[in-house]
Amino acid sequence: MTDSAVPSFPISGRNRLRRSHERGRFDKATVYDILDSAMLAHIAYSIDGQPYCTPTGFWREDDTLYWHGSSASRMIRRQSAGLPVCVTVTHLDAIVLARSGFHHAVNYRSVMAFGTARLVEDPAEVIRLMDGFVDRLYPGRSNEIRAPNSQEIKATSFVAMPIDEASGKIRDTHVSDDEEDYALPVWTARIPVRQVLGETEPCPRQLPGLDRPAGMNGYRDGRRLDETLLEAYRAYRQQFSF
Amino acid sequence: MTDSAVPSFPISGRNRLRRSHERGRFDKATVYDILDSAMLAHIAYSIDGQPYCTPTGFWREDDTLYWHGSSASRMIRRQSAGLPVCVTVTHLDAIVLARSGFHHAVNYRSVMAFGTARLVEDPAEVIRLMDGFVDRLYPGRSNEIRAPNSQEIKATSFVAMPIDEASGKIRDTHVSDDEEDYALPVWTARIPVRQVLGETEPCPRQLPGLDRPAGMNGYRDGRRLDETLLEAYRAYRQQFSF
Repeated sequence: MTDSAVPSFPISGRNRLRRSHERGRFDKATVYDILDSAMLAHIAYSIDGQPYCTPTGFWREDDTLYWHGSSASRMIRRQSAGLPVCVTVTHLDAIVLARSGFHHAVNYRSVMAFGTARLVEDPAEVIRLMDGFVDRLYPGRSNEIRAPNSQEIKATSFVAMPIDEASGKIRDTHVSDDEEDYALPVWTARIPVRQVLGETEPCPRQLPGLDRPAGMNGYRDGRRLDETLLEAYRAYRQQFSF
Repeated sequence: MTDSAVPSFPISGRNRLRRSHERGRFDKATVYDILDSAMLAHIAYSIDGQPYCTPTGFWREDDTLYWHGSSASRMIRRQSAGLPVCVTVTHLDAIVLARSGFHHAVNYRSVMAFGTARLVEDPAEVIRLMDGFVDRLYPGRSNEIRAPNSQEIKATSFVAMPIDEASGKIRDTHVSDDEEDYALPVWTARIPVRQVLGETEPCPRQLPGLDRPAGMNGYRDGRRLDETLLEAYRAYRQQFSF
């Protein structure tokens, strides 16, 4: 599964796969691509024994994940040592109908990343991250919009989580039935699922004569969101050489 | 936000919204529709202070959520009192580009549901749930496929979580900028995002002459997955009168 020549995340009790080992991916290139193709992650953290799972926009710089602080950041403010979190990203790629209930499945790409989240305290770093969050999604856009004002900077919290361990998991095969079941007269299929962009709806109050900026060229009607996001991420990374 | 004439989830410190109160939905009809339009949930639980966020297939019967046991069930086996969990479902509906970074947003529908998960121990209930999981997604399919064998029943764990509290959250508006920013020459737009089904790929080893079953009629090329799932759920519920 792992190759010592390829940069990989260490495997521990936390990210070791208990089931379906053949689906495991620990090399950083695969884990990064799954993360960088996503706009939203689900973040698990626990406060006084109560777990929470919060969906939120996020992005990656090297081995650190960043997201907007919401309730999590308040929690982190109360926990000066930082908060253990698990950040999960999932792409649903297909539904798979088999000849037995047991072998029904979905194709997917997912990553679980573990680490300790800390609040970003430095105001200059907050400003850099405000621009970074926009540019990671929409390359060059931070230069095209109004700059953050002091009130916005004060109201915005970012959380940083260096990835200690991560595991990717991929299922991308077809129907996989028990050998003796293939003789059964059951309709079976794989049906692809994809997240796509729709037709751009300009803001009704937009000034006339404004063209779609070059950084938004990928966000076209019918395109896959994951591919568009990965492309945008690579354009952003190239600019800032992550 | 809540109306005493409408069945709603109670609001506590756990599911109260800290931000964007106008987006909160606590009525059961709205929360149910968001849940029943989804195939996957992200489940947060914590073991020895380490949070985990696991993506998994799930479904609802009345106020109880069910999912396949994976690592979580092993954890629950070790915790006879049950495991506190948070089950989150998120639909991404649009990306929204504003005139300032601060007002960039996404449109979404999400639910966070809180409760205590317990392992389903009764083998007869496990068999019922194996069929239920299939039929909830693909109405009538449990009658069309091979029945579970004893080995599969033994190997399958289900987890049940009665919902103690839940909150829905919806953003479904357009660009919402600071009033003075509308005069800025910035290209702004809402771009819809939807999860759609692709063209059915029959199993290469399927016997000839088999027609698509009636229960699969909704799963057609180009259809929205959320709408198809909600339709399927309603057909299933009608059959079993949940």
